[in-house]
Amino acid sequence: MQCVGICGSDVHYYERGRIGDFVLRAPMVIGHEASGIVAKIGSKVTNLKIGDRVAIEPGVSCRKCSWCKGGRYNLCPAMQFCATPPVDGNLATYYTHSPDFCHKLPDDVSMEEGAMLEPLSVGVHACRRGRVEFGSLVLVLGAGPIGLVTLMAAKAMGAKRVIVCDPQEHRLKIALDCGADEAVCISSNSAEKTVDAIKTLLHGSLPDVTLDCAGFQTTAQIGIQATRPGGVYVLVGMGQDSVDVPLVLAAIKEVDIRGVFRYANDYPLALEMVASKRVDLSPLLTHKFDIEETQLAFQTAMNPDERSIKVMIYCNRQNNEQTV
Amino acid sequence: MQCVGICGSDVHYYERGRIGDFVLRAPMVIGHEASGIVAKIGSKVTNLKIGDRVAIEPGVSCRKCSWCKGGRYNLCPAMQFCATPPVDGNLATYYTHSPDFCHKLPDDVSMEEGAMLEPLSVGVHACRRGRVEFGSLVLVLGAGPIGLVTLMAAKAMGAKRVIVCDPQEHRLKIALDCGADEAVCISSNSAEKTVDAIKTLLHGSLPDVTLDCAGFQTTAQIGIQATRPGGVYVLVGMGQDSVDVPLVLAAIKEVDIRGVFRYANDYPLALEMVASKRVDLSPLLTHKFDIEETQLAFQTAMNPDERSIKVMIYCNRQNNEQTV
Amino acid sequence: MQCVGICGSDVHYYERGRIGDFVLRAPMVIGHEASGIVAKIGSKVTNLKIGDRVAIEPGVSCRKCSWCKGGRYNLCPAMQFCATPPVDGNLATYYTHSPDFCHKLPDDVSMEEGAMLEPLSVGVHACRRGRVEFGSLVLVLGAGPIGLVTLMAAKAMGAKRVIVCDPQEHRLKIALDCGADEAVCISSNSAEKTVDAIKTLLHGSLPDVTLDCAGFQTTAQIGIQATRPGGVYVLVGMGQDSVDVPLVLAAIKEVDIRGVFRYANDYPLALEMVASKRVDLSPLLTHKFDIEETQLAFQTAMNPDERSIKVMIYCNRQNNEQTV
Amino acid sequence: MQCVGICGSDVHYYERGRIGDFVLRAPMVIGHEASGIVAKIGSKVTNLKIGDRVAIEPGVSCRKCSWCKGGRYNLCPAMQFCATPPVDGNLATYYTHSPDFCHKLPDDVSMEEGAMLEPLSVGVHACRRGRVEFGSLVLVLGAGPIGLVTLMAAKAMGAKRVIVCDPQEHRLKIALDCGADEAVCISSNSAEKTVDAIKTLLHGSLPDVTLDCAGFQTTAQIGIQATRPGGVYVLVGMGQDSVDVPLVLAAIKEVDIRGVFRYANDYPLALEMVASKRVDLSPLLTHKFDIEETQLAFQTAMNPDERSIKVMIYCNRQNNEQTV
Repeated sequence: MQCVGICGSDVHYYERGRIGDFVLRAPMVIGHEASGIVAKIGSKVTNLKIGDRVAIEPGVSCRKCSWCKGGRYNLCPAMQFCATPPVDGNLATYYTHSPDFCHKLPDDVSMEEGAMLEPLSVGVHACRRGRVEFGSLVLVLGAGPIGLVTLMAAKAMGAKRVIVCDPQEHRLKIALDCGADEAVCISSNSAEKTVDAIKTLLHGSLPDVTLDCAGFQTTAQIGIQATRPGGVYVLVGMGQDSVDVPLVLAAIKEVDIRGVFRYANDYPLALEMVASKRVDLSPLLTHKFDIEETQLAFQTAMNPDERSIKVMIYCNRQNNEQTV
Repeated sequence: MQCVGICGSDVHYYERGRIGDFVLRAPMVIGHEASGIVAKIGSKVTNLKIGDRVAIEPGVSCRKCSWCKGGRYNLCPAMQFCATPPVDGNLATYYTHSPDFCHKLPDDVSMEEGAMLEPLSVGVHACRRGRVEFGSLVLVLGAGPIGLVTLMAAKAMGAKRVIVCDPQEHRLKIALDCGADEAVCISSNSAEKTVDAIKTLLHGSLPDVTLDCAGFQTTAQIGIQATRPGGVYVLVGMGQDSVDVPLVLAAIKEVDIRGVFRYANDYPLALEMVASKRVDLSPLLTHKFDIEETQLAFQTAMNPDERSIKVMIYCNRQNNEQTV
Repeated sequence: MQCVGICGSDVHYYERGRIGDFVLRAPMVIGHEASGIVAKIGSKVTNLKIGDRVAIEPGVSCRKCSWCKGGRYNLCPAMQFCATPPVDGNLATYYTHSPDFCHKLPDDVSMEEGAMLEPLSVGVHACRRGRVEFGSLVLVLGAGPIGLVTLMAAKAMGAKRVIVCDPQEHRLKIALDCGADEAVCISSNSAEKTVDAIKTLLHGSLPDVTLDCAGFQTTAQIGIQATRPGGVYVLVGMGQDSVDVPLVLAAIKEVDIRGVFRYANDYPLALEMVASKRVDLSPLLTHKFDIEETQLAFQTAMNPDERSIKVMIYCNRQNNEQTV
Repeated sequence: MQCVGICGSDVHYYERGRIGDFVLRAPMVIGHEASGIVAKIGSKVTNLKIGDRVAIEPGVSCRKCSWCKGGRYNLCPAMQFCATPPVDGNLATYYTHSPDFCHKLPDDVSMEEGAMLEPLSVGVHACRRGRVEFGSLVLVLGAGPIGLVTLMAAKAMGAKRVIVCDPQEHRLKIALDCGADEAVCISSNSAEKTVDAIKTLLHGSLPDVTLDCAGFQTTAQIGIQATRPGGVYVLVGMGQDSVDVPLVLAAIKEVDIRGVFRYANDYPLALEMVASKRVDLSPLLTHKFDIEETQLAFQTAMNPDERSIKVMIYCNRQNNEQTV
């Protein structure tokens, strides 16, 4: 194993031992945003060879249920997903994985980028669920790590213009650095004010797709109100379990509400974005630790300062530096 | 004009003079579920001739905006829709309409059925939005007039099994008479209990599509919880403007939430359902009045008894009886 | 094993030892339209138990390639398909298969019907590729076994009207018995005459979908000419490798040409059609033989008389008669 | 009127007076790739004002048939299309058009680019029919004017890599200048050799989408053979009316064959490509004439030299130069 990024869910398990119905009942290795170098392969493996640098898509599905056979393996009820109890994650020196969920990295994609394909794949999946395409007018709500990768994916997929909203000015600044065309500060809890600001910016046009990477009452209100009739509101981030949604407004405008659960068949696109230099993940990588410093890494992730985005742990930095 | 059905929205305007942002500021003719006989045609009309019996699709769109050109004319912002202020409806002796929104009825489809194509088209649109197709497992929430036509449309489109839920036993009985495979009584406000009852009925399967024809907090909860991962929850009825929705659950299951606003390109399918005898609308027609008795008709619609479903007004009963 | 139907491809291998690039280089068990009773299960199998009556979907895909993960496993390049060299078929007393490709039959579906789900699944796949849905106007070209199951699938999926064309009157008669709404005889090689006859029948309407279950020059011409602009021509049967196609006409009308290769995720729908009695496969079963009479069965399949449609071989008739 | 480009179909009418079933029976003004400046507007026009610079989408559909209402207005049987007999084109000083088919140009899009949105829209439509999206591997057959705009549209829509094939080296050179990633010379009539060359270039991958902008026997063969299973072959150019197609191969691979007829809802995307500088049309404009030199312009278009791509006629050069 080489690089493993820390995700909000890792912090959640570390702090509270549970996320919703997923409860830790035994110690569990953490980590699911990872890259590594192939050290050993099974006798039937043909797509990889020892020494290959790979990104690890962390969920292995059953391959036999109707969801797997239908192309939506992320919904497989028997999914084995790294660091979702009771399955161990891959923040480790060595780790075994199905070869078809290992994505070979070209030489000019770094191990760090390989690890960050995981959050980027969430952004790709969100954009695909929202049908972002060339010429789309896109609204991204929330400028945390997922908001930023979603913004990047939307730009790479040809969005005409991406507006990012967040209540924190310093995060909007990062969003602009990451390619946002406009930034709108969500002031207080007034959805209407934010919607008005968006409309003003767009001179009467409305977003075709809203990608809500926050998932709060206010952002749901903004999203449904701002999206153009016939458009899509995608729920990517999940801030509140249950949200008061203006459903009649969504229905009258036929604005579809679509959720995002991880990703399916999105890693190759995420990799292509990075390999083609259409997406530059480097601004997201703000902190680096060795695996021995994991506790410190989690402390950092739990107490983010203004510039914090992604904390990366190196499982074997020496080896890695030789390779990259 | 021949037959005009009374819809809940007509009653709403009659009683309160407004629905949401649509406010009556001047007297308005009511009526939008209508059929008639062509009395006169313009010089360029080729699809109709005098004497043709037609169902009237009540909204005429601008034909020029991006929604009209893109095939979703129901979202046209310049829509002229019968009995939506300030546009007059068609509860009248004569009425002028665009010929391409008049659908010619075959001989064996009655004027009453022609008028009822309007609510049936809502059901058809709901089923199409939800991708109901041969073999679909369907849940219909609410057994009012819209719930019943939606159930009928779902059966016609090949649904394997349709389960209908409603809090009122007498309405469930009507649903079973109208073709529902199962009826589940929504007891109190417990979404969980209803979901459990549905799951028990289905022996572990889950509905592919839920068509919520009520639109209340409880039904939204039931719908999101009961629908299978990757399925669709369609909001057809609009009981409450704003509803507390378990958005995270919808996202984790990737259950899409899609609204229904009237219909677009659905009248031909609704007509085919009736003409092919795949749908029998006759059980829905419970009360008949002449146009002179309109006030009485509205009183009846405003004070429904257990068997009430659809109140129909005859604009010219004598003529009609000659024709049908 | 219980019932195994003989398919044209089986006859082809029996007679010539090859189909296109698939060449027999060693003896191969034939048979891929099959049903059986579970005699033994692996320790991890949970969806089946001993004694279950099952239809066998004959292809097992690799589950790991982009086609398998994307929901189109029929295109998997590593597919292991019964009786496609060098993979043995299942015309045998016992046969081992992946449990997720065994479809449990309800009590009132016979073993013969179970075996015939295979060709019916081709018809289902063809209809799904062609987007046949409630209200579709459908043209089926060719009234051989595949034409008949495709017709049945189209009717079950809600086609408004199905017209079947074939050069042989006796086959058209069978098509009418199997539910066709109209039958048109393809006279000589004149595509135009047949198209005119279809147009006359439809009073100016045109088929939304054409399902070509023959795949000859003439049928391709008929299909492209007859299909409505924006419709779909589906190639199901493959009579000639290469066909002179009026491509410019297809382009000007934007009639899509879509091929059908076996099936993917179609068995459950085919089973639902039979279980719901929407499809009655019994008229197709014209000849029955015991496994000991296999040579005679093939002679019968190779020399069909007018009434011949499907020849079925019983691997264990005694057992079967006890079960069904 | 300002700029009007000459298209192959204009030359065809000029030389032979017909294209297929469209026969000139009376003199007809030619021209359908046009831009102009609004000189006068009707009293109900709200989307334009006098002086606006516009691109003219040359077909005005009936707005009332099932194709118009269904979002595919290019298939409208009552389409009025510039310079398709008997409808006059717009190579004129003044010309009247429906305002909703006039697309307002931003200041930094030139009148020449406005006229060239017409062929670019064909390329956009082809890419949308073929589902070109971020990451697609694309093969373009033919490097004439339509091949070049299709290549440009594919790159703008995010194609990972576009390979262009043509028998003429000088056209391949232009394609490379216009953004092609690779160029393959079609040698003699051997489809196989060209397919092998493509496969070698792609190291075993296959194009997801083939856009055939030539429409000959050889290109159809190349396209069907080269496209990946489950991919799409789009027929954009129409070199031969009827083509011998390896239909069985297309079926076995489920490679869809889709035609392109003009465009529908594509002008806004084409305009966005030019306005955003994602597409640079300037290399295509090789010859310029004043309207008085029209005969010379046609001579030039009829006798192209190696560098010829697009001939443009200025209806009012003085005015234009003031404006642009």
